[in-house]
Amino acid sequence: MIKAVLAVVACSVVALTAGILIGNFGIQNSSTKAWVTEVVQDVDERLIETFLSEVDNLQIQENMRELTKVPHMATTAGDEQTVQLMLERWQDPETGLDQAWREEYMVYLSFPDPKNPNKVTVVNSSNIVLHAVREKEKPYTPDQDDPEVVQPYAAYGPAGHPKGKLVYANQGKPSDYQLLSKTVDLKGTIAITRYGGAGRADKAINAASYGVVGVLVYTDPMDINDGLMSDINETYPNSWYMPPSGVERGSFVSRYGDMLTPYLAAKEDTYRIPVESVTGIPRIPIQPIGFEDAYILICELGGGEAPSTWQGAFNCTYNFGGPGFKPASDFKDSDVKLDVYNKGELKNSSNVMGVIRGSVEPDRYVIYGNHRDSWVYGAIDPSSGTSVMLEMTRVLGRMVKQGKWRPRRSIIFGSWGAEEFGLIGSTEYTEQYFSKLSERTVAYINVDVAVFANATFTASAMPSAQNVLFTAAKQVKAPGLHSTSVYDNWIQYSNRSSPTHGTIPTVGFLTGAGSDYAAFVHYLGITSIDISHRYDKTKTNARIYPAYHTAYDTFDYASRFIDPGFLSHQVVARTAGNVLMRLADSLVLPLNCSDYAERLEGYLDTALTLYQEQLTTLNISMEPLKRAVARFRSAAAHLDRVIHSSDLANETPLKVRRINDQLMLLDRAFLDPLAFPDKYAYRHVIWASSSAGKATFPGLADAYAKAESSGQKGDWAKVHYHLSVLNQAIEGAAHTLEDVI
Amino acid sequence: MIKAVLAVVACSVVALTAGILIGNFGIQNSSTKAWVTEVVQDVDERLIETFLSEVDNLQIQENMRELTKVPHMATTAGDEQTVQLMLERWQDPETGLDQAWREEYMVYLSFPDPKNPNKVTVVNSSNIVLHAVREKEKPYTPDQDDPEVVQPYAAYGPAGHPKGKLVYANQGKPSDYQLLSKTVDLKGTIAITRYGGAGRADKAINAASYGVVGVLVYTDPMDINDGLMSDINETYPNSWYMPPSGVERGSFVSRYGDMLTPYLAAKEDTYRIPVESVTGIPRIPIQPIGFEDAYILICELGGGEAPSTWQGAFNCTYNFGGPGFKPASDFKDSDVKLDVYNKGELKNSSNVMGVIRGSVEPDRYVIYGNHRDSWVYGAIDPSSGTSVMLEMTRVLGRMVKQGKWRPRRSIIFGSWGAEEFGLIGSTEYTEQYFSKLSERTVAYINVDVAVFANATFTASAMPSAQNVLFTAAKQVKAPGLHSTSVYDNWIQYSNRSSPTHGTIPTVGFLTGAGSDYAAFVHYLGITSIDISHRYDKTKTNARIYPAYHTAYDTFDYASRFIDPGFLSHQVVARTAGNVLMRLADSLVLPLNCSDYAERLEGYLDTALTLYQEQLTTLNISMEPLKRAVARFRSAAAHLDRVIHSSDLANETPLKVRRINDQLMLLDRAFLDPLAFPDKYAYRHVIWASSSAGKATFPGLADAYAKAESSGQKGDWAKVHYHLSVLNQAIEGAAHTLEDVI
Repeated sequence: MIKAVLAVVACSVVALTAGILIGNFGIQNSSTKAWVTEVVQDVDERLIETFLSEVDNLQIQENMRELTKVPHMATTAGDEQTVQLMLERWQDPETGLDQAWREEYMVYLSFPDPKNPNKVTVVNSSNIVLHAVREKEKPYTPDQDDPEVVQPYAAYGPAGHPKGKLVYANQGKPSDYQLLSKTVDLKGTIAITRYGGAGRADKAINAASYGVVGVLVYTDPMDINDGLMSDINETYPNSWYMPPSGVERGSFVSRYGDMLTPYLAAKEDTYRIPVESVTGIPRIPIQPIGFEDAYILICELGGGEAPSTWQGAFNCTYNFGGPGFKPASDFKDSDVKLDVYNKGELKNSSNVMGVIRGSVEPDRYVIYGNHRDSWVYGAIDPSSGTSVMLEMTRVLGRMVKQGKWRPRRSIIFGSWGAEEFGLIGSTEYTEQYFSKLSERTVAYINVDVAVFANATFTASAMPSAQNVLFTAAKQVKAPGLHSTSVYDNWIQYSNRSSPTHGTIPTVGFLTGAGSDYAAFVHYLGITSIDISHRYDKTKTNARIYPAYHTAYDTFDYASRFIDPGFLSHQVVARTAGNVLMRLADSLVLPLNCSDYAERLEGYLDTALTLYQEQLTTLNISMEPLKRAVARFRSAAAHLDRVIHSSDLANETPLKVRRINDQLMLLDRAFLDPLAFPDKYAYRHVIWASSSAGKATFPGLADAYAKAESSGQKGDWAKVHYHLSVLNQAIEGAAHTLEDVI
Repeated sequence: MIKAVLAVVACSVVALTAGILIGNFGIQNSSTKAWVTEVVQDVDERLIETFLSEVDNLQIQENMRELTKVPHMATTAGDEQTVQLMLERWQDPETGLDQAWREEYMVYLSFPDPKNPNKVTVVNSSNIVLHAVREKEKPYTPDQDDPEVVQPYAAYGPAGHPKGKLVYANQGKPSDYQLLSKTVDLKGTIAITRYGGAGRADKAINAASYGVVGVLVYTDPMDINDGLMSDINETYPNSWYMPPSGVERGSFVSRYGDMLTPYLAAKEDTYRIPVESVTGIPRIPIQPIGFEDAYILICELGGGEAPSTWQGAFNCTYNFGGPGFKPASDFKDSDVKLDVYNKGELKNSSNVMGVIRGSVEPDRYVIYGNHRDSWVYGAIDPSSGTSVMLEMTRVLGRMVKQGKWRPRRSIIFGSWGAEEFGLIGSTEYTEQYFSKLSERTVAYINVDVAVFANATFTASAMPSAQNVLFTAAKQVKAPGLHSTSVYDNWIQYSNRSSPTHGTIPTVGFLTGAGSDYAAFVHYLGITSIDISHRYDKTKTNARIYPAYHTAYDTFDYASRFIDPGFLSHQVVARTAGNVLMRLADSLVLPLNCSDYAERLEGYLDTALTLYQEQLTTLNISMEPLKRAVARFRSAAAHLDRVIHSSDLANETPLKVRRINDQLMLLDRAFLDPLAFPDKYAYRHVIWASSSAGKATFPGLADAYAKAESSGQKGDWAKVHYHLSVLNQAIEGAAHTLEDVI
């Protein structure tokens, strides 16, 4: 009987235990919903490892080969070929995205006339041509001879036929023309300038106010070739250096987006301002030429000797110009004549868009983009970036198609059109989807030229994104190195001392409009990251890779001189993809608002050093700015504490969402659409462009520089105004980081 | 043995069952979290019933008595008394809010000089005063004799001592001065105008361009008293009508917010524009007077007879003025002289803020506000609204303190300062907290004058808020009626035919800047609602309640003539509170985007009727606008379907949040900070103010009116521009309602 009782007890205990287990784990409780665990899922490191291991350098190489088969300038047949390629890849049933489509805009572009090539000649008083500048770059491989290679020209430079005595105007900065005008009467002259120092369009805009009637621009071998000039053995195809006939093409416009539809997406029916009303483009003809011709022109110039800072690599003295050539020159008394036939055209340009739908928060977007259009073959610019993007989408797309992965947030890929003409595709996109993107975008990642050179990974970003860059860079190995991380390699090439973190790699600022991040940063206020792989600056002084915007930027050039083996491309794909996955998958967004505080403090320190003494004498107090920055710091520290002290995996998912909204919208709080009435689409009061050249708040720096130079009361009032704008923006941003109520 | 086996089996079954039950219900499952049910909690109708039953008309009456003890013009000692009262109530441990505090702004106000009262006199050529206008309103109760009663004046009208022949300029509209100037040379004259037809400041701004040197303004008994004039038996204290010496005070400024700190919160250190740069205020002295004096002046005027539309209720003919008085008048050849001593002052004005913290989504705000400052006692304007707000917070506060209720979303109460001077407190608040409020505010409810009269409930709102107003109005009984709902009463007084809903009460538009909703609607793009109780328009033609902005707007007046028993106040408190609770507690926000589509379609129809024919001849297509509105309609229908086909109580709370974000941010998508460069802080392209007087898109209507009148090509281009702005905004809004990816 005892046995029986024991049996009953034993079996009951077993049954009870089993029951409890079944009850607890076996029954789909009405309140135990599937989403309860899904909503708190954090980034899965194994999936990141999978991604990293599958990114293939040779695939990237083949992508580039494919993308650079023909010249693909915006809206040409070659461009359409790349549109089709992107769509085909992104719609691939095995490795494509959830969806891909194209979006068209009707945009204002500018082209030379293939039937009437632009000409630059030296003509004597009898109108005899003494020298004609080469119209197309010298071919070294059959590539450069393709009829689709566009003649070098200055996009948006007007047509015209100016003729005049030549002068040398250095970089075409206002100060250059000012100095030059002291020795030469510039009225009616043609100015030759070298690239660098001023924006392309500005070289002509600055010139026009001195009566200059036409401008030439070339790349001095000092600025691009470390002085080398000979194509016998020194330049491409023997090295990465620019051949003597190489010409940097470019857009000669100082603002971004379609010029005829400011702030409006350029759809067919959209209101267009008259072409005559467009500002920021040259009003006098301008033409870029190779240094072989610039050499002939400059070395014959008469007049006084230009200052040492104006001298370049030619083995002659750079004179101002008489105006015109030396009396002893064969060209003496001759003019330089420009025949420019450029014309503006409305053309349909396409963005190709692709998405991977988010599982938990489909209404949160991580956007990754690059432009697709080139000037000629564009192997490096932009196809290195597009090749990386295609490899990334291949690996991620396959993970999605195989059911291995779906990101928490949606990922949008953009292959932008017509960037080379002024970041047009990306800008029109942000104009068209302004509200949706502003409300929902977590971050924008831009990889345009993926690899300038194979020395080191580098990035520019809003400070809050620094940390996720570092996390990713620590996890990826440097190209061809098995023991050094991207992070460790990076820190060797470029580092700074952070009050919080000690010595860390330097992350640059996104203050300009150098690539498609511009509209995201400056117009939408979206936390952005621009990634590339760059030079060892101790080894070259080139202002950029020498084939930039020339017909020599080809697969051959890229694969022989920029990244043989494509290992640097692989590193960029791995690191950028890692950042992308973390932004898309992390439970708490990997954005750090305290790092933003550190940057604001840095800017504040600089501002105090530069301005406080003078402003105090004018009764303009910088105390409110100090208080605003301090408040921001303390709000950021508070939010950090909330994040670290929360058990987010077990709290309501609305708490994570709330914190993430605070992080996501932080940059939006720095927007002020009225702060910079003279700067098109610059609204971010921390990162707007600035001409003052100080590492501090741009509106303040520019206003101060202007007031200092004019001394006018109204200009000092503008300094005070910009201080108030800043205070309000920084305090406003702090409010968004504090307790939500 | 069988028994033993059976016992084992039986006990095991019992134990297993017990175990399952314990396992399923008894253990706090790690995945069965408390928040799982909380996050899907919908509005609790029983709590709304509790609220409705506890709102007490007599409490509202006592609130008003308390609030109107002394004059409480902005920044005076009386104003400070009301600040203290609000703080005391909102910090009450039994019936207060979670938190209450004050926020100060240093704002630019304008006051008369108590030591040098403004004077208006008739003086003959020997400078002898033939008539002096009454300086203060006649006292009927001791209230009006209080030294703190501010003399009637035109705030922001400049000081000065102009003298000239009198003319009558009707309502001071541009067309009035134009007509008048055809018969009289206005140079050097004083113009007397009546209220109505044009903004206060505009009466003087319009005059100045004709050389008029000073302006008087009065309220014609035709416009306010249904023609009645005698205080023996017809006007207050015998009725609600304005006594003969009553004067409407007011702010004479045509924009809103602190004038010296545009777009910046007026903190002590904020940059201030020079007073001379302020636009939209009179540049010639202006003074409001009572109709007893206006009668004496107007009936003596010489010159031709003014048109019939200019005639008022006086028993004499309104002449233009010779200029000046009739030859037969005692005043013949006399001038009218103004002595205005107003001066501008920087003063500290306080908002009082209070919050109830949300339980589930504390980062979502429903804001409820009203201004606190009056011109004199302000029983109706604004204390009727403040009395209602205090009763609402008492009832809600107690529910919170007793643990009976905590809203899903946070509720913010604002008692705004200095509204009477130009909506200053609310505007500065929106400027200071721009980002935070833009990101998180679900809706703003404004109840300024709660009860103008006791006939009917009425509201103006964005179309998406119509539905929640109707839901609330159906649930509340009309004042003193037990069988008729507020809704049924409302529909009798004002209704329209909706293509979707059939006959429904008319909800007005928030196109102007009549009260503190302005900054929320026009600057922030927040879905807003303005609520009050109003006249039976068949019974009076008064343009507003007759004691408006006079010294007679007292507790006595309100409780005897506007709402004896305070039942209409109770109705407003119940209905507005009901709306507030639904906005704060509903799982899915009670905002209906399809009702917005209906309004856009109505605007489109009007625009097509008015403009399409002419625009077609100019090659400006309205097809894109049609497409945009159609796309909005279909996006709204789509979101409605998503809402109705979802099982939101069982799906992830992030789905509800996503839908609610779409609804919350809808109005934000209509903002364009650059669309109206000449209209201060008007950014909402659907609701911006318009002078064209057409029930359609304001920017389009104004641009069309201008182009039609000028015929200039550039003006027609602006019409096209505004069409593109609208297309982009409406399509942009549609994008936010479509599938999120």
